[in-house]
Amino acid sequence: MSLIDRILDLAALPAGVLPKPALAMARLSLFDWLVCGRAGINEPLSGKLRRLAEDEGGRGAASVFGGAPAPARMAALVNGATSHALDYDDTHFGHVGHPSVAIFPAALAVAEEAGTSAQSVVEAFLVGAEASVRIGMALGAVHYNRGFHQTATAGAFGATIAAGRILELTREEMRAAIGLCATRASGLKSQFGTMGKPYNAGIAASNGVECARLAKLGFTSADDGLAGAQGFIPTHSDAPDTEAGWETPPPATFLFEDIKYKLHACCHGTHAMIEALLTARRETPDLSTVTVESLHLRTNPRWLAVCDIKAPRTGLEVKFSYNWLAGMVLSGKDTARDDTYSDALAADPELGAFAGRITVEGDASLTDMQAEGSLKLADGTQLAIDHDLGRQLPEAELAAGLRNKARALLGDRGEVLWQAMQGLSALSARELGRHTGA
Amino acid sequence: MSLIDRILDLAALPAGVLPKPALAMARLSLFDWLVCGRAGINEPLSGKLRRLAEDEGGRGAASVFGGAPAPARMAALVNGATSHALDYDDTHFGHVGHPSVAIFPAALAVAEEAGTSAQSVVEAFLVGAEASVRIGMALGAVHYNRGFHQTATAGAFGATIAAGRILELTREEMRAAIGLCATRASGLKSQFGTMGKPYNAGIAASNGVECARLAKLGFTSADDGLAGAQGFIPTHSDAPDTEAGWETPPPATFLFEDIKYKLHACCHGTHAMIEALLTARRETPDLSTVTVESLHLRTNPRWLAVCDIKAPRTGLEVKFSYNWLAGMVLSGKDTARDDTYSDALAADPELGAFAGRITVEGDASLTDMQAEGSLKLADGTQLAIDHDLGRQLPEAELAAGLRNKARALLGDRGEVLWQAMQGLSALSARELGRHTGA
Repeated sequence: MSLIDRILDLAALPAGVLPKPALAMARLSLFDWLVCGRAGINEPLSGKLRRLAEDEGGRGAASVFGGAPAPARMAALVNGATSHALDYDDTHFGHVGHPSVAIFPAALAVAEEAGTSAQSVVEAFLVGAEASVRIGMALGAVHYNRGFHQTATAGAFGATIAAGRILELTREEMRAAIGLCATRASGLKSQFGTMGKPYNAGIAASNGVECARLAKLGFTSADDGLAGAQGFIPTHSDAPDTEAGWETPPPATFLFEDIKYKLHACCHGTHAMIEALLTARRETPDLSTVTVESLHLRTNPRWLAVCDIKAPRTGLEVKFSYNWLAGMVLSGKDTARDDTYSDALAADPELGAFAGRITVEGDASLTDMQAEGSLKLADGTQLAIDHDLGRQLPEAELAAGLRNKARALLGDRGEVLWQAMQGLSALSARELGRHTGA
Repeated sequence: MSLIDRILDLAALPAGVLPKPALAMARLSLFDWLVCGRAGINEPLSGKLRRLAEDEGGRGAASVFGGAPAPARMAALVNGATSHALDYDDTHFGHVGHPSVAIFPAALAVAEEAGTSAQSVVEAFLVGAEASVRIGMALGAVHYNRGFHQTATAGAFGATIAAGRILELTREEMRAAIGLCATRASGLKSQFGTMGKPYNAGIAASNGVECARLAKLGFTSADDGLAGAQGFIPTHSDAPDTEAGWETPPPATFLFEDIKYKLHACCHGTHAMIEALLTARRETPDLSTVTVESLHLRTNPRWLAVCDIKAPRTGLEVKFSYNWLAGMVLSGKDTARDDTYSDALAADPELGAFAGRITVEGDASLTDMQAEGSLKLADGTQLAIDHDLGRQLPEAELAAGLRNKARALLGDRGEVLWQAMQGLSALSARELGRHTGA
C-alpha cells in the first residue's frame, strides 16, 4: 500500500478506534502546549506577530495567545511561533520534531471557527501528530541532516491533516489538502538561534489551515504530492524510506505515545543527567554540592559539542552546561523555571567551585536519550546514577512533572489551567480557546 | 564577494542607476501582468481564493483582481495565483521562471498600503525580478530538475526584496527578510496541471509580503539564509553555482531585460514556429493552407515530448500541437485569444487535412527557443522559415504584440488599460491598483 493511502486511512480513522493511552498523552500535550504558549506571550517575537495580526485585522474567531481573536490562518501563525518561543514544548524522537507547536494551533483555530468540541481538537491533533511522525520518518534523518526542520516540514502535514479532519474533508479533499501542503511546506534548521526557529512552527500551523481550507473550497492538487514523482518526500530527502514505521501500523500502534516533555528549561541533551541526579536525591536525600566530592558523567558523544560548556558566561549558556546544571540540581535550584537561568547564576561562586569537580565523557554505547555516571561522596562511597529518557514515565508521574512546570512558568494560573483541563470533555473548542489568554 | 552581499547591494541600488531599457521592459511586464490577472478573474481557482479572502476579511487596502480590497499578504496570494491561472504571463529563461506573477502582486500590495507611487512598484519589481533571476541561476537547472518550481522558490526571494524595498528596509532588515524567506519559500513542479501551479505564484508573492513585513517589525533571522550553511540554496540545490551570472553584475547588466512574453495562448515550445510563420506571412501575404503544400519543421528535440500532439482531441491539446497550430496561423486564426482553442477547433476538417502535410523533426543544433523549417508551396517554390525567441524584439514591436494580446483577452478594456499605462509616472500605487478591477 502506498504511503499516501496509508496516511489517508490514518486521517480518516473514526474517533472510537483511537487508543485511549495515546489520547491521554495527547491531552497532556494540550496542557503542556497551552502552558508553553502562555509562557511565551511576552517574548519579543510573539509581540511582533501579534502586531502583524492587529494590522491585518479581519473577521477572526480564533484565539491568539495574549491577543485579540484573528482569522484561523493568522491565529495559527502567531500561536505556533509563540508556543515555540521558549523552546520548552514537547518533542518526538521518532522523526525528531515538535508536534504540539505545529499542530495544536491549526487544530484549535479551525475548530473554534467551525464550532466543534475541545475533544475534536485532541483527536484531530493526535491523528495529525501521528501522521507527522510517520511522514517525518519517511523523510528520515537525511532530511534533517540536509538542513530541514521536521517541526516545520513534517509538522505542516500534521497540521493540514488535523485541520482537514475538523473541516470534515472527504478522502479526495484530504488528498488535495496534502498535495497543496506538499508545495507549501517549508522550514530550515539554519534559523536556529533566531526568531526564525519559532516562526517555523507558526509557518507549519498556518500552512495547515490554508491548505485544508483551500481543499474544502475545492482546490485541486497533485494526486500524490507526498511520495509521488517529484512530490515533497523525494524532493526533500536524499534517502526516503516510505516503509519506515509501518511494520506497526495505526490504530494498533500510535508512535505518538512516545512523545517526550521538557520538564527543565534547558538543553534536551542535559535532561537525562538531571533526571538521574533527581532520582539519586530522592533515594539519598542528603546529596548536595557539599556531600558530593565528584561526578563522572557519561553521555552520547554528540552532546559534547552541544551542551558541555565548561564555564558558561550567561544564563543562556548555563542551559548548555552539564557541570553547572549538576550543581544546580544538587543545590535544589528549580531547573523547570526559565528565570532560574540568570546571568548572575553563571557567576555563582559555589556552582563555579563545584563545576570543577565534574568530568564528562562521551560514550557511544549510550543513546542520545541516556546518561550514566558515578558520584563519589565525601565519605568515599561510590553511587551509580543513570537515566533513560526513552523509558516512558507512568502517566501520573508525567502529569505531576507537567503541573510542576506549569506552576514554575505561570504561577497559580498554571494550576488553574490544569484544573480546567480536567473538565476538557465538557468544553467546546471556543471555551478551550479562552485558555490562551494572558 | 558573497552572494548575500551582492544581493543586498542589488536590493539597495538607488532608483537613479536603474537602466532605462530594463525599466521599459518592467513597464511592459506590468501591463502584461495586469492583462493576465484581469483575464484570470473568472478562472475557478481565482474565485476560490477570493472566497478565502472574503471569509477572512480584514483592514485591507490592497487591490484584488476582481474582488474587494484585502490585507497585503492575502491580496498577494490571490493576485499571484489569479494572474498565473491562464499560464499566459512572462517567462525568464535565465533560471526558467515567471517573474511577474510572483513579484508584482507583492510589490503592488505593499505599495498600496504604504501609499507610494506606481513608479516605486515598477522599480521594486525590477530589482526583485533581477534578484530572483540571479538567485534562480545560483540554484541552477539541478534545482528545477529535482522538482522545484523556480517561479515559487526564486520568486519568493524576488517578492521579498521588492516588498522590502517599498517598506524601505535597512540593509540589516533586508538581510533578515531574506533569511526569513529562506525558511518560508517553497513550491514544487509536481503541481503542474492542477490549481497548485498558479497557487505557487501566490505562495511566492504572499511569502514576500510576510517576510518583508516581519523584518520591518524587527524579526531576526539567519545572517546568510541564502547561501550560508544549510541555507536555502545548499538545501535546495545539489550543485549550486553562486557565481553564475556575476561576470556581468548589475547595475551595468540587468539580466531581466531578456524577459519573454507569451503572445500566443499555447505552449511556449510552439511560439518560435508561430513567429516564423507569421513573419513568412508578412513577407509573402498569400501564404495559406491552400497555397502551402507542406511544411517540414525542425525544433529542439525536448519539445517533441511536449508539444507535438499529432491529432489533438480537445482545445487544450491543440495548444500542444505543432501541426494544428501551423494550420491555424496560415488560415489567420487568432492564436493570442484563449477562446480560440475550442474543442470544436480540434475537430476542424480543414486543419485536420492540413495537419497531415506537416512533418516535425528534432534537431539538437537548435536551442529550445529556436525553430527552423521549409515551406513547399503549391507552385513548387521552397521557402525557408526561422525564428529565435532568444533574439529580443524591438520594444515597439513587443508593445504592439502585447496590445494585441490585451485586446484579444480583454476586448476594448485591453486598449483602455494600455492607454492608462502610458500615464504611469503620474499614478500612485493606489491608482494603479484600481486597474485590477474586472
